[in-house]
Amino acid sequence: MAKLVRLAHGGGGQLTGDLIRDVFLPHLGNPLLARLDDAACFPLEGGGDGRLAFTTDAFVVSPPFFPGGDIGKLAVCGTVNDLGVSGAAPVALSASFILEEGLALDELEAAVVSMAAAAREAGVSVVTGDTKVVERGKADRLFITTAGVGWVPAGRDLGVRRVRPGDAVLVSGPVGDHGIAVLSRRPGMEFVTTVKSDCRPLNGCLLRLLDRMEEGSGRGVIRFLRDPTRGGLATVLVEAAAGAGADIVIDEAAVPVRSEVRGAAELLGLDPLYLANEGKFVLVCAREGVEEVLACLRNEPDGREAVVIGAVREGRGRVYLQTTFGGKKLLDLLPGEEVPRIC
Amino acid sequence: MAKLVRLAHGGGGQLTGDLIRDVFLPHLGNPLLARLDDAACFPLEGGGDGRLAFTTDAFVVSPPFFPGGDIGKLAVCGTVNDLGVSGAAPVALSASFILEEGLALDELEAAVVSMAAAAREAGVSVVTGDTKVVERGKADRLFITTAGVGWVPAGRDLGVRRVRPGDAVLVSGPVGDHGIAVLSRRPGMEFVTTVKSDCRPLNGCLLRLLDRMEEGSGRGVIRFLRDPTRGGLATVLVEAAAGAGADIVIDEAAVPVRSEVRGAAELLGLDPLYLANEGKFVLVCAREGVEEVLACLRNEPDGREAVVIGAVREGRGRVYLQTTFGGKKLLDLLPGEEVPRIC
Repeated sequence: MAKLVRLAHGGGGQLTGDLIRDVFLPHLGNPLLARLDDAACFPLEGGGDGRLAFTTDAFVVSPPFFPGGDIGKLAVCGTVNDLGVSGAAPVALSASFILEEGLALDELEAAVVSMAAAAREAGVSVVTGDTKVVERGKADRLFITTAGVGWVPAGRDLGVRRVRPGDAVLVSGPVGDHGIAVLSRRPGMEFVTTVKSDCRPLNGCLLRLLDRMEEGSGRGVIRFLRDPTRGGLATVLVEAAAGAGADIVIDEAAVPVRSEVRGAAELLGLDPLYLANEGKFVLVCAREGVEEVLACLRNEPDGREAVVIGAVREGRGRVYLQTTFGGKKLLDLLPGEEVPRIC
Repeated sequence: MAKLVRLAHGGGGQLTGDLIRDVFLPHLGNPLLARLDDAACFPLEGGGDGRLAFTTDAFVVSPPFFPGGDIGKLAVCGTVNDLGVSGAAPVALSASFILEEGLALDELEAAVVSMAAAAREAGVSVVTGDTKVVERGKADRLFITTAGVGWVPAGRDLGVRRVRPGDAVLVSGPVGDHGIAVLSRRPGMEFVTTVKSDCRPLNGCLLRLLDRMEEGSGRGVIRFLRDPTRGGLATVLVEAAAGAGADIVIDEAAVPVRSEVRGAAELLGLDPLYLANEGKFVLVCAREGVEEVLACLRNEPDGREAVVIGAVREGRGRVYLQTTFGGKKLLDLLPGEEVPRIC
């Protein structure tokens, strides 16, 4: 029987990895794509010593409007944040819309207004775009795909291959807010919660941090940054450990989760470590730099809740969770889809 | 009653223009976006005297596989050609997939294989991507959104504002092939034809032409290039005349249309001038440069059928078709959608 695409192929877990390894890389493969970074970064002929960063994401979140954001805000923040965690200042965004016939123009306009506000906040413009319309029942209201180009200054070097045993692992704030906020409005699943999506542009915070750490002795302290979106904190950690070829040990009690998020996740049978975030980042840095990184982040609205949640250890590229009961649990990619269409 | 999105909003005609003017530009507007060029071109800080070109398109063609191409080939060629007509050499592509649950993985792989072949032909790589999956019935098999970055060398200046009365208008070959090829396989509409889509990357041909014309005295001769995709030749001409603030007079008998395309279009009640092309370009050049342009194109597989179809005249920005019967007909944007989901 022919193999078919399943929802879990889009979940960011094992099946997404299979799709990339079995279908995309064998045909499209090249060294940049194969790195599977949030943004591809490469020198531009005649562009000096910096590197161009290039990234894209499709947004199909359901429902498209949720507490704390909407698909328009998400489409800008998602792409801007992929540039930010690559160390790139955003240069320009593109936006492509796929609209379902019958969508209210007011709804489209509301999403566009949100995009514009998020772009202003991030200090970037949408400079090019496209719109397609498909028949009723051939899309779900609206899908937005953004791409972004950014510029990584000369000498900035972030990446999972820079992660070393002994490094500290930080997260910038409580995890799981975006996932719970979207689910609370999902048709057939609505529940009452005060949780709002954390969706926001992080480039300002990240670039100020990187600039400051790169002045003088802090250069090289920050090894790796990533935004734990689809697949959540756990998926980023699993990919980072595998990419670094070292273990990551996380102290479960240190991972910040709002009580409302924990409660809602428990009711839904979901693990907050796998819930999506859209305004958080994971940071790995040299142990001796932790205090300086935290001091920088304390002045940042999007970083002041940052905490150390674990450390990198010699090992075979696995992630262990030290539970509050003294146990040790192996974290892995989800075999399937925890929450479809979360971004 | 709330205004709703109609299929014609995606047709590239009047309603698409309304959407851009009423919904997108008021909120996202900036000088680059407002130019509505195929690619936004802008200097890059520290990038020397050239300009970065950035473009995106969503592809929702139905059916996704058709004679002469498929959605994967189209997604690469459409974006590469938008760079090419902007005078940009392609630097890198991104690809975002929205897949419908239940799509055969073989079908996805076939589209990816086509993308890879087209990218190789165009001499560019897909360096970053994304995949999302939506539930069965929430998309139509697969949608692909590509974005592209390119590099416009210093001193190259193309644009509708450079078009002058007296200039010649050329098209690179017969029009309407792509439109008829896709329609011939559209569910509920299938008909037998030998017509194949002209879908192909044009960047090689365009860049060799521009490079050669820019050597010495030919610099500045080529004013404007555009690929007549959705909305066809007529839509490009109407937009060019309006943008230039000058009339364009087209000799109907000079516009190349294959007899099979003409026949099929007549049966379907469609005008070949509005049918999509995916491997053709419209070129406006100084009258004194026509012979040199044609001589350059004669050596190019994608340009050797180029012909002069008309000229630019003083006027108020309208397009007139001189018919074979001696009449004169005003060409305008289509009020609605000639053919939905053609790309």
